[in-house]
Amino acid sequence: MKVVIFGASGYGGAELIRSILVHPFFELTGASANSNVGSTIGELYPHLGFSEVSQIEFVSNEDLITMVNRGGVEVAFMAMPNGQAIQVVPKIIDSLRLVVDLSADFRLKDPTLYDRYYNFSHTELSLLDEAVYGLVELNRGSISSARLIASPGCYVTAVTLALFPLLDLGVVTNDGIVADALSGISGAGRGANVANLFSEIDSSSFAYGIGTHRHRPEIAQNIGTDLLFMPQVVPMVRGILAKTYAQFNPQWLEAVGINGVDDTPSAMQVGEIISGAMKEFYSASPFVDIRRSGSSPMTKSVLGTNRAEISYFYDGTTNKVLAISAIDNLVKGAAGQAIQSANVALGFDEELGLSKVSLIP
Amino acid sequence: MKVVIFGASGYGGAELIRSILVHPFFELTGASANSNVGSTIGELYPHLGFSEVSQIEFVSNEDLITMVNRGGVEVAFMAMPNGQAIQVVPKIIDSLRLVVDLSADFRLKDPTLYDRYYNFSHTELSLLDEAVYGLVELNRGSISSARLIASPGCYVTAVTLALFPLLDLGVVTNDGIVADALSGISGAGRGANVANLFSEIDSSSFAYGIGTHRHRPEIAQNIGTDLLFMPQVVPMVRGILAKTYAQFNPQWLEAVGINGVDDTPSAMQVGEIISGAMKEFYSASPFVDIRRSGSSPMTKSVLGTNRAEISYFYDGTTNKVLAISAIDNLVKGAAGQAIQSANVALGFDEELGLSKVSLIP
Amino acid sequence: MKVVIFGASGYGGAELIRSILVHPFFELTGASANSNVGSTIGELYPHLGFSEVSQIEFVSNEDLITMVNRGGVEVAFMAMPNGQAIQVVPKIIDSLRLVVDLSADFRLKDPTLYDRYYNFSHTELSLLDEAVYGLVELNRGSISSARLIASPGCYVTAVTLALFPLLDLGVVTNDGIVADALSGISGAGRGANVANLFSEIDSSSFAYGIGTHRHRPEIAQNIGTDLLFMPQVVPMVRGILAKTYAQFNPQWLEAVGINGVDDTPSAMQVGEIISGAMKEFYSASPFVDIRRSGSSPMTKSVLGTNRAEISYFYDGTTNKVLAISAIDNLVKGAAGQAIQSANVALGFDEELGLSKVSLIP
Amino acid sequence: MKVVIFGASGYGGAELIRSILVHPFFELTGASANSNVGSTIGELYPHLGFSEVSQIEFVSNEDLITMVNRGGVEVAFMAMPNGQAIQVVPKIIDSLRLVVDLSADFRLKDPTLYDRYYNFSHTELSLLDEAVYGLVELNRGSISSARLIASPGCYVTAVTLALFPLLDLGVVTNDGIVADALSGISGAGRGANVANLFSEIDSSSFAYGIGTHRHRPEIAQNIGTDLLFMPQVVPMVRGILAKTYAQFNPQWLEAVGINGVDDTPSAMQVGEIISGAMKEFYSASPFVDIRRSGSSPMTKSVLGTNRAEISYFYDGTTNKVLAISAIDNLVKGAAGQAIQSANVALGFDEELGLSKVSLIP
Repeated sequence: MKVVIFGASGYGGAELIRSILVHPFFELTGASANSNVGSTIGELYPHLGFSEVSQIEFVSNEDLITMVNRGGVEVAFMAMPNGQAIQVVPKIIDSLRLVVDLSADFRLKDPTLYDRYYNFSHTELSLLDEAVYGLVELNRGSISSARLIASPGCYVTAVTLALFPLLDLGVVTNDGIVADALSGISGAGRGANVANLFSEIDSSSFAYGIGTHRHRPEIAQNIGTDLLFMPQVVPMVRGILAKTYAQFNPQWLEAVGINGVDDTPSAMQVGEIISGAMKEFYSASPFVDIRRSGSSPMTKSVLGTNRAEISYFYDGTTNKVLAISAIDNLVKGAAGQAIQSANVALGFDEELGLSKVSLIP
Repeated sequence: MKVVIFGASGYGGAELIRSILVHPFFELTGASANSNVGSTIGELYPHLGFSEVSQIEFVSNEDLITMVNRGGVEVAFMAMPNGQAIQVVPKIIDSLRLVVDLSADFRLKDPTLYDRYYNFSHTELSLLDEAVYGLVELNRGSISSARLIASPGCYVTAVTLALFPLLDLGVVTNDGIVADALSGISGAGRGANVANLFSEIDSSSFAYGIGTHRHRPEIAQNIGTDLLFMPQVVPMVRGILAKTYAQFNPQWLEAVGINGVDDTPSAMQVGEIISGAMKEFYSASPFVDIRRSGSSPMTKSVLGTNRAEISYFYDGTTNKVLAISAIDNLVKGAAGQAIQSANVALGFDEELGLSKVSLIP
Repeated sequence: MKVVIFGASGYGGAELIRSILVHPFFELTGASANSNVGSTIGELYPHLGFSEVSQIEFVSNEDLITMVNRGGVEVAFMAMPNGQAIQVVPKIIDSLRLVVDLSADFRLKDPTLYDRYYNFSHTELSLLDEAVYGLVELNRGSISSARLIASPGCYVTAVTLALFPLLDLGVVTNDGIVADALSGISGAGRGANVANLFSEIDSSSFAYGIGTHRHRPEIAQNIGTDLLFMPQVVPMVRGILAKTYAQFNPQWLEAVGINGVDDTPSAMQVGEIISGAMKEFYSASPFVDIRRSGSSPMTKSVLGTNRAEISYFYDGTTNKVLAISAIDNLVKGAAGQAIQSANVALGFDEELGLSKVSLIP
Repeated sequence: MKVVIFGASGYGGAELIRSILVHPFFELTGASANSNVGSTIGELYPHLGFSEVSQIEFVSNEDLITMVNRGGVEVAFMAMPNGQAIQVVPKIIDSLRLVVDLSADFRLKDPTLYDRYYNFSHTELSLLDEAVYGLVELNRGSISSARLIASPGCYVTAVTLALFPLLDLGVVTNDGIVADALSGISGAGRGANVANLFSEIDSSSFAYGIGTHRHRPEIAQNIGTDLLFMPQVVPMVRGILAKTYAQFNPQWLEAVGINGVDDTPSAMQVGEIISGAMKEFYSASPFVDIRRSGSSPMTKSVLGTNRAEISYFYDGTTNKVLAISAIDNLVKGAAGQAIQSANVALGFDEELGLSKVSLIP
């Protein structure tokens, strides 16, 4: 099945190529990168020199649109900066079986949020309406018949996977939720930026976008309530470690009943009951790995994989439910997630082209 | 002034030596390290080979006790593992002008907490009672006349400096406070431990001691209320980045009045008012640096220094006050703090032997 | 095909498991780790929790020997410390189709070198004689019919692949060769060692084993001449970057003739002629990637892969040929190499279970 | 004494400020940075927010020239990119007591090398002639009366300090010398460059400028012979680890005589004899630290300091003398060196404003 990538020169593009190379049914046949037109993939990514795709030349977005419209290509992955996919998708979608957009352009259902958070006005309202949100774990049914998938990014995926079932099942209330999340710096992309130099990032941890980050409204859309979102950078290339703090709802415990537990469960038992419910919620999701209550996921454990590790903990003193989730921001938080939902939309095994074994050490 | 270090072979000991070497009034005259008896400082720390202290031989704790009791030494810094200083301090304190203990042995006023969190029973209750808590910013008066100082550690210092004035002034309530803190791995010490190998820590962020960490009761003692404490390791050697989340108390705003602000201040204005109050609270503290509301401290900005950078932010949606603080865990979170309170106790300028300029980049 | 791993708890063991999990014909059925008997693979490697192998319990070496001798197992990988495989291999080899040893126990043809460099006397001389050196690129024929393979390690592989063809074809003389090689710290293994802590290795580059390293005689055995070998550690987990400096032999140029080049080729042309000869030498080796003369391999380009990137350069001023080679020490320098030669010995496609696409960024 | 910095916004500038802040006689009174005119030092370097220099506003180079020519300033440090100091120095030198240039503009005595290696033609030949090369250890006398100092950079300092005395005393011949040097990435400066992003540099070691690097002719000028220079980047912020390989001259041994050694000294003894001669050569240099033969300097041991650690080793097999030297590229390899030679030129203690104790861990 012939696939193309628009905007293939960034880290998301590199990671898409890594997956496509090991995917049994996908064949990369074209790639655009407006700032690298004329270079080959092998020139930009010397580590792919051994592969046949290294001979593919980057073309302009316009030329790739033309190529797609000549027919033969079935899938396009859009890995361009925010605000560019809405320019391209309308021109190609009718020639393709599937478009998966990795940018924010089709994620937010309220179009006015684009003016406020992304500095552009959304002009493709019917496509926005048609787009299916590409979080397979929560949306498998719609994705399986989608033509346009809006694939969510790293922070939003890590936080949503952790919080959605807690709120959906009523385990926690929606009062004063905090999501405190650490990210590797590759999430900032491959742009030439002094702030992201090795000399600046090494040995440094810091917060940014405090209270104003554009992923806050997207998380709110997913979980159905606003929250305080605190993104931070820590000195690693890949990985998200998200911790969410929410108020426990004791009535949930009464509702579910407590099998094999005394009338008043200990805090540790409450944590285990919550973990059990989460495990059940994700029982059909091969990439979600609910860990033992009280343990912690590690970003290194998911490095290079499409897995999400999540653990839950109940703190009796503050009556809070803590969730910790770890993903690789470039895989489950970007390219891997896009491949996963493409697999579902195209009727393939969800796991094709994706790894579960991380590079340890 | 002659000083000695008990337990000088760990990272805290190395950092004490670094300060003492540039301190105009301290002269290191003895160092113990039970596991390195007979080695010189220069053998264990080749980077100090150039210095005269490199010839000092590590002796046993017993031999250093004997040396102290022969007289001439005025100050002892105790950098031994928890549970060991209470064995040594009673044997030397009467021969000395000042003892500064960097371990937890004299920090907790409730002795039963040692049984629960440190696996030993405290047997030196009168010294525990006499010991002064060595956080100069909150306790300058008592420290100036102390004979035995219990110097607090990294997490506790970062969290306490951020939260204490908020609670003390009534800016926040004590309900459901969360302290989420990131640490460099040097906080785990210099022990041979597989989990702290470069190959394990690089590229990895993770939580540990979830809900059970021994620094929770010490923070609670300092701020006067229990809280949820979430320590995490991120891949850097030094640095603490602590974020605290607490519920804003609107009555505080009424109480302080709002000069130069409309009747209903915006969230941003509330953040600035809080920051102003904190700046005033710490106006006499040369090592506390209150930053602009909405900005973030960076661990790299305090690397190698005794400074604490703190910023405050008010989030209108959740009505929470966020504080972010950054310190170097081995300086303001260990050795630097000990030197600082020794300076105050001995009547020296608080800043002697301590740096404020970090190693950037 | 059932395989077992002796000594599976170190980094080599972890990497073997990573390959075996994606190998279409290998099934892991047993693993020994004397220091972790009774633990499961999932307990030691939480990142494998999702996989069926996570349920496998580590047994003692003795119990795994017994299991092998009950039959059914066809291949054993030995990932034990030096000096241990010679205890085990004699007890199992007759029950197996293939034994691949990742330690040094069967690599050195001169048994007296074990006394001198490894502190044990070699007692299995006939097995030592039978053992085939597992560098597929130089030894494909013998490996294809081997029963016992001595699989070389990281430094030796990187240096031998770079130097062997230069000496074999007479491009360089064997006078005063220098091999200066950088290694990631995972090469030092998973032992609890203060010197390998994150806090010690971060920001530090240094040499060790100067002139005395035990890999010097093994390289000398491979290339047929002694040399100065300078191993160094740089702050990264994986990767070897080896640079070799040897004296150019101008008569080689006359011997090969110089097609399409002036009578006196420029230094750049000499470099390109050498590169061309090396490319031809390795033309049947899918994992060797000869790069353009004057360019440099990067350790990151081979991260997680079994590829070796090598470039050659001729320096006119000093008349030296410089070779630079990069491999992942745990893959082409350990587990991947073992899998590769097992594939050849068992008649499989050389590339099964091995990746060529690195994790970038 | 009033000092100014031209080009103060890069890493060299930041490091100059760090030294000046602790220097007892220097007072920073002006700083230029053409790309940051109007910003204050505190805005560009938030970690200096606590200091009075944070209020200093960056001005243009032109405005700083005017300020200097109004009088009162005594010293200018030039931390501008190559090719810019020759524009500025002629306009200010007559108003100043001392100019120290950290760029290459006055380092090479053969002006034609600027055309070849730096892409500009040198137009200030009399200043070039007047300029004194600022390596205090080799040039103390001339520096003490200099008005214009050309301060050498990181690679050149590390290699020259190691090789100069070997060649000067005749310990080695000048045939086929190789200098293989590792550098932290801060040596590449603070420019916005994709290749220097954390995501690119982390986990990566690689060579560059192979055979063509512009520091090759400068090293050759210093040591009096050409050589093969192989610069490499390893994943750390600061530090140079240089290894040089040269042919031993046995006649030197005869010339110096061998006290207390048998007629034919062992290789180890030769190494120790060489080390002793080097120790004597540098006996008046407080910042050079000759280590035991066979040991290795570590970049971490000199982090943040102006020290150079060097060790020497003799390899009997290849008859080569190996030298290993470690410096902090931003201190002894840039700003610290400039301060050191300014101290000498101004008659101050050589060590003022400079540290010898590194930040360990």
